[in-house]
Amino acid sequence: MSGNPGNLKVTVWNEFLHEKKAGGKPAEIYPQGIHAALAAHFSAQPGITARTATLEEPEHGLTKEVLADTDVLFWWGHMGHDKVDDGIVQRVQQEVLAGMGLVVLHSGHAAKVFKALLGTNCSLKWREADEKEIIHTIAPNHPIARGVGERIILEHHEMYGERHEIPEPDQVIFISWFAGGNVFRSGCTWERGLGRLFYFSPGHETYPIYHRQDILKVLVNAAHWAGEPAAAMRAVQGGAPRTGTANSVNEKEPVHPL
Amino acid sequence: MSGNPGNLKVTVWNEFLHEKKAGGKPAEIYPQGIHAALAAHFSAQPGITARTATLEEPEHGLTKEVLADTDVLFWWGHMGHDKVDDGIVQRVQQEVLAGMGLVVLHSGHAAKVFKALLGTNCSLKWREADEKEIIHTIAPNHPIARGVGERIILEHHEMYGERHEIPEPDQVIFISWFAGGNVFRSGCTWERGLGRLFYFSPGHETYPIYHRQDILKVLVNAAHWAGEPAAAMRAVQGGAPRTGTANSVNEKEPVHPL
Amino acid sequence: MSGNPGNLKVTVWNEFLHEKKAGGKPAEIYPQGIHAALAAHFSAQPGITARTATLEEPEHGLTKEVLADTDVLFWWGHMGHDKVDDGIVQRVQQEVLAGMGLVVLHSGHAAKVFKALLGTNCSLKWREADEKEIIHTIAPNHPIARGVGERIILEHHEMYGERHEIPEPDQVIFISWFAGGNVFRSGCTWERGLGRLFYFSPGHETYPIYHRQDILKVLVNAAHWAGEPAAAMRAVQGGAPRTGTANSVNEKEPVHPL
Amino acid sequence: MSGNPGNLKVTVWNEFLHEKKAGGKPAEIYPQGIHAALAAHFSAQPGITARTATLEEPEHGLTKEVLADTDVLFWWGHMGHDKVDDGIVQRVQQEVLAGMGLVVLHSGHAAKVFKALLGTNCSLKWREADEKEIIHTIAPNHPIARGVGERIILEHHEMYGERHEIPEPDQVIFISWFAGGNVFRSGCTWERGLGRLFYFSPGHETYPIYHRQDILKVLVNAAHWAGEPAAAMRAVQGGAPRTGTANSVNEKEPVHPL
Repeated sequence: MSGNPGNLKVTVWNEFLHEKKAGGKPAEIYPQGIHAALAAHFSAQPGITARTATLEEPEHGLTKEVLADTDVLFWWGHMGHDKVDDGIVQRVQQEVLAGMGLVVLHSGHAAKVFKALLGTNCSLKWREADEKEIIHTIAPNHPIARGVGERIILEHHEMYGERHEIPEPDQVIFISWFAGGNVFRSGCTWERGLGRLFYFSPGHETYPIYHRQDILKVLVNAAHWAGEPAAAMRAVQGGAPRTGTANSVNEKEPVHPL
Repeated sequence: MSGNPGNLKVTVWNEFLHEKKAGGKPAEIYPQGIHAALAAHFSAQPGITARTATLEEPEHGLTKEVLADTDVLFWWGHMGHDKVDDGIVQRVQQEVLAGMGLVVLHSGHAAKVFKALLGTNCSLKWREADEKEIIHTIAPNHPIARGVGERIILEHHEMYGERHEIPEPDQVIFISWFAGGNVFRSGCTWERGLGRLFYFSPGHETYPIYHRQDILKVLVNAAHWAGEPAAAMRAVQGGAPRTGTANSVNEKEPVHPL
Repeated sequence: MSGNPGNLKVTVWNEFLHEKKAGGKPAEIYPQGIHAALAAHFSAQPGITARTATLEEPEHGLTKEVLADTDVLFWWGHMGHDKVDDGIVQRVQQEVLAGMGLVVLHSGHAAKVFKALLGTNCSLKWREADEKEIIHTIAPNHPIARGVGERIILEHHEMYGERHEIPEPDQVIFISWFAGGNVFRSGCTWERGLGRLFYFSPGHETYPIYHRQDILKVLVNAAHWAGEPAAAMRAVQGGAPRTGTANSVNEKEPVHPL
Repeated sequence: MSGNPGNLKVTVWNEFLHEKKAGGKPAEIYPQGIHAALAAHFSAQPGITARTATLEEPEHGLTKEVLADTDVLFWWGHMGHDKVDDGIVQRVQQEVLAGMGLVVLHSGHAAKVFKALLGTNCSLKWREADEKEIIHTIAPNHPIARGVGERIILEHHEMYGERHEIPEPDQVIFISWFAGGNVFRSGCTWERGLGRLFYFSPGHETYPIYHRQDILKVLVNAAHWAGEPAAAMRAVQGGAPRTGTANSVNEKEPVHPL
């Protein structure tokens, strides 16, 4: 049944470009990269095994073997969106449709994998003005919001504002307020095929947002929620590969006699 | 019907391959092609202007000018899905996101434009066994179902069955029953960007389904519903081109002073 | 606007208690009552006929005859929620399920008719601090948002904040930002039975909000959208009463022979 | 996180009227009543504790203490719907809004608790013709459908057919096919307040449907899914009572200084 299938397999993908620029804020905040920071936190949780993958590895680190062994994939990208190979995008998309979870972070709103799965441009408004963001919990009973409380306050962040060009979410989990007058659906869920998607907007690379315990709580919750179907499949299939539903099936024999 | 903004501009796209095969059923039923049959019916309605476009025309007949002058695009494709140029697919997708309606028919469930907008493979079960289909109206208050009544009965049709790998629809308008024991969500709506989508499964090329008044009523209703946003925009913009929201916007000035 | 079926019949219900208190702000802003101000504006629109009904009239002014002749009912209530008769609540609920539109305004979030149709308490957070509200358009292609633009700014209003205990809306049309740090889904749609519902939060009785052209544009749009199914039924039925689906039906004869 | 919180507390409510009629089919199939059969099965599952409650007990067996100690309530009713006290209906409704799960079975579609939470009449079509029902899985990745497979076939059942007057479900998990030509959304989910609802139509009292392993698998899955929020709350609150959100809150202090 639903729930803790012993061991959840997380892969954190990061383009890992900002953090490599010497002397920059991102390098200071995440010396090993955002992926390493997140993976370390995930691996420290009971029942989670995390690995990382980055843009400049062969196949962006997302080989068939890695994806087949991933219950939930986290995605952080920004300046390197265009460098992601279309074949890998399709591979990720098919794995999601076959049951792998996908958690897209911050500027990943414009990542190819996100746009391919949602079918829209996912455009939005933004402003770098170091302004206060208040993340309000809209769906307090959703597993992703458990233990988060009514709100999370970020004193300084980049503004992301509506209208975000996304399909109406299955559920809006969080809505953010920005001091400059904007609002943003900052936590949204969708299902595509057999897979679960979660978009969570906090995490600009120049702020230490992924070091905050409240934000990390959301991400751990999201890992469990989005990864649950794939983990449950693994438990049943004993490690046999996920089978997607890419092709239509000719069901020649009727279920009821004609 | 709802929202008649004087003149609704319909384009019926058809791959137009089956009907060109001499001596075949499709050629017998639709001697000028499915597109011509549908366009003639649309044009006979007050307030609708219809044109056609087909696969083998330059740019598949879907030039920028044609799409900019289209409120709602109907799409029938099957054996030629792979021949549709990816650039045209993207063009259609962007026009839908900018407000053009899209009505996808029957085997168009596997068309590139449909999959690009929904983000899934849209696979399903099928059986050619000449079996009875009963299309039940599930959302009788929806503009697409107006005047249709409780059900439409097709004595002979190809079976399309669940699970159809689509995102949960905004609304399920029709569910079909098949004599061989299958069910299918045969009429579904979604919104993507500023555009409205409707998928309607009846219409296998070897049955005269698009000559039926009850089916044509659904299609005329769907033209009005899906085309309404674009027609309303035209009324306001006086023919100026639709503007999509493909790109994010840097809103440097806050709405409320920081 | 969309779907103008010649003549749309609007009834504006108001408890009409605040405005009767001599010397108060509401009396100053709406000397004839909120209902009279709104009905006058509706009646000034081409194709709309509006009437009013209030709490202290017999049957609260909502006789069977009045409701049967109403395509869309607007509802403003606050201090008199408990005085609304349960029989009238059920009558309104059944008319909505049979196709009448319902637009619930501001403090009507806690009205019996709204809670009966949504099934939740519709509780929220509030604060009377005269603070700025920015209403952001989230669904710019929805008929209710047509011509409204990206945002409406109210310099002074009562704060309504999340979490609003409502079922996930079919569509979130507007989200409001408040200077004091709150957000609110200020425009939401649902369908219940054959009827359409819209909740719109602006309109505290001590501010002249219903005299603003931008707010009135939303309300006129909402009247057309929510009233469209009932108006379309009238057009077809020639004035015969709406028939709901209150009772289950024994369909003894199978559609397909057993 | 989500999942098995050690011990799930299930209460099975049954009007228990049909089974008490001597010599009838229901008495033969469920000699101790439907509630007893289901509770015995639940209690045999690891991690579940089940109890029962019936119409003719004081407070229908649904005292405040019982409900406060219930994570998920199953509801089977039919001929006794009108005998259920309105105060108890409100009590159950408030517990669901505060986080308790509710699984409504078969003729419970017309139960007061179901109608109160959904806001509609929940009317449908029915036929007692001993016909075949094929339950198709539409959402195979949903926890309720895990391990169920593509379909469940009931050789003989009462027909329930569309249109079922329910709000558009959050997810349609199952759609049923009936030999007589009808279809029915036989498994549907909604959320209301903090609680999860599932409606599952199989289970007419004259067929031994609740003795089938495939049907019981769905019900155990549903118990875990619908009861998960309440069980998770218990784990955190250490047995302190659930707190609903019945009342609006005056948040006098702004989150952000005005």
